[in-house]
Amino acid sequence: MTKITKAAAIGGGVIGGGWIARLALNGIDVAVFDPHPEAKRKVDEVMANARHAYRRMALKGLPEEGTVTYAASIADAVKNAQFIQESVPERLDLKLKTLAEIEAGAPSDALICSSTSGFKATDMAADMMHPERFLVGHPFNPVYLLPINEIVPGEKTGKEFTQRACDFYASIGMKCVVINKEIDAFVGNRLLEAAWREALWLVKDGVCTVEELDDIMRYGFGLRWAQMGMFQTYRIAGGEAGMRHFMAQFGPALQWPWTKLMDVPEFNEDLVELIAEQSDAQSGQWSIRELERIRDENLIGIMEALAKAEKGKGWGAGELHNAYVKQLGRASKPKLSAAAAKAKATKPRKSARKG
Amino acid sequence: MTKITKAAAIGGGVIGGGWIARLALNGIDVAVFDPHPEAKRKVDEVMANARHAYRRMALKGLPEEGTVTYAASIADAVKNAQFIQESVPERLDLKLKTLAEIEAGAPSDALICSSTSGFKATDMAADMMHPERFLVGHPFNPVYLLPINEIVPGEKTGKEFTQRACDFYASIGMKCVVINKEIDAFVGNRLLEAAWREALWLVKDGVCTVEELDDIMRYGFGLRWAQMGMFQTYRIAGGEAGMRHFMAQFGPALQWPWTKLMDVPEFNEDLVELIAEQSDAQSGQWSIRELERIRDENLIGIMEALAKAEKGKGWGAGELHNAYVKQLGRASKPKLSAAAAKAKATKPRKSARKG
Repeated sequence: MTKITKAAAIGGGVIGGGWIARLALNGIDVAVFDPHPEAKRKVDEVMANARHAYRRMALKGLPEEGTVTYAASIADAVKNAQFIQESVPERLDLKLKTLAEIEAGAPSDALICSSTSGFKATDMAADMMHPERFLVGHPFNPVYLLPINEIVPGEKTGKEFTQRACDFYASIGMKCVVINKEIDAFVGNRLLEAAWREALWLVKDGVCTVEELDDIMRYGFGLRWAQMGMFQTYRIAGGEAGMRHFMAQFGPALQWPWTKLMDVPEFNEDLVELIAEQSDAQSGQWSIRELERIRDENLIGIMEALAKAEKGKGWGAGELHNAYVKQLGRASKPKLSAAAAKAKATKPRKSARKG
Repeated sequence: MTKITKAAAIGGGVIGGGWIARLALNGIDVAVFDPHPEAKRKVDEVMANARHAYRRMALKGLPEEGTVTYAASIADAVKNAQFIQESVPERLDLKLKTLAEIEAGAPSDALICSSTSGFKATDMAADMMHPERFLVGHPFNPVYLLPINEIVPGEKTGKEFTQRACDFYASIGMKCVVINKEIDAFVGNRLLEAAWREALWLVKDGVCTVEELDDIMRYGFGLRWAQMGMFQTYRIAGGEAGMRHFMAQFGPALQWPWTKLMDVPEFNEDLVELIAEQSDAQSGQWSIRELERIRDENLIGIMEALAKAEKGKGWGAGELHNAYVKQLGRASKPKLSAAAAKAKATKPRKSARKG
């Protein structure tokens, strides 16, 4: 595969901004299209966080940062792109329209991927001329640090294309899990949605506050899920008798009325206020920017801890972290001489928004 | 409060064994009752893991280990106990019978707590003479490492007693969250149950394997939940507009048919086999003992990473970890002279099962 050096990001919100950061920090030039008047400021803020995080974790150096430029149209953003990541808001009509514009303007061999967290690739590709080169590559926030990427090909996505997309994502430090059966929301968000609904009930019914619920996670099973998932954890809980024993023991609980999930809590102003107020009480002392920095430091700390596991081979996200840091280091440019650095500083590569 | 130096553990399975380890490693003598013929061997194995973990994390030393003795009856186990933790299998009739025996044999001022992960304290205390000194203290596996403890008082539990129980649990390194509204399964297991049901559907329907699902957790949102829970994480996702914006954006998804949770997957031999086989493929290369050691190392690594956060003050479980390690160190006994150590070695304090 030709090395990808030019990418386009369509949409520069929380997710799009995270993609831009991951791409640029891997040395890839990114052309951005986002009609929001403050798009550049927002992307710059994500970039600042991401740069801080990468400098903190890249003990062996970093590649020279790719440029981030702002295009006046989708056509302009994608015209030279080898890889295009669509991250516009979650409305199917908007996704369809955006993909049509991307396809019309992009080189015929460009990879076209969507960040959607819910729609099926098959539905999104319904109007595409070449659905074989489109799939869902669904990341989790913060995109520049969390490695997971749910790859969901549509019915017409080409196998060779899926492989190319996975290879590219892996080359920028991601862990791809290919979901071969299309369902809305895929796997990660189904689990999150299930837990989220139950959480809303627990808070709405006054069983606990958002802070108490968060504490039960982060002093409890969250520490387990950072390193082993649900099934591997339960395998251990089954003890010597293993998974069959665990299932037999836990199974009957499925019949108990232990969740309210069959029912949807009414989403009204009262519920929003209740949760927003409790969230202010829990986290109001930190700005979002501070919370992001704390989160990123912790994510890196956890990945570095897991990187030391198994005698330095690493475990789970830690094993991948070892490989990623090493790769970033290999791609790092030798330090410029003082004179060369000064010359470079006078020619900023980052252009302002064109439009 | 009088310092607790003598405890009883009724039930020595995965959870009971974890309690015994946490108590003994904090220097508390534990009398165990468990009618299982291999109870002692099983507890010894949990103790070996826990001892290994504590030596690894207790950089400032450990208290002298409490004794673990095996009693022939509940009455015998509890007769001198200041604190009693019940961890028998999850059957209400068995819990009621066990609590009656505990109450009949225990000193009148002993703390009586249950590890139940589902029953309400009020229901469990229905036949007790003194329900005011009983509550649920629900831990998560591995009990000797995970700090969380869901404290669920019953309708008749005394406020002063709840405070005493929390103080004691905190003194052995735990984070107590008091749940003041009783519901079956409390908070943690409601969330786990919701995610578990959805996970069973995803595997049963062939959307993913258990390994793929676990990877999506441990390379994805599991890394977030180890340090911030669900609400604090989503507060950040809302960006500058905060929690209200996030709720407004995410809210409508509650109406979408994104989970199958309204429905219970049929629990049959086929489902057990499917999951057990995939679990073997994922983890069969490690014994349960090896997986436990890997898990424990990772848990300590993650807590140590979080302990370094916020300029060494620590964050979440890491802040507690700092305090716990310090406290264990303060309680550590000065090293014995070689002669004293030898003399002590000839008088093993651990007696075998009496019965």
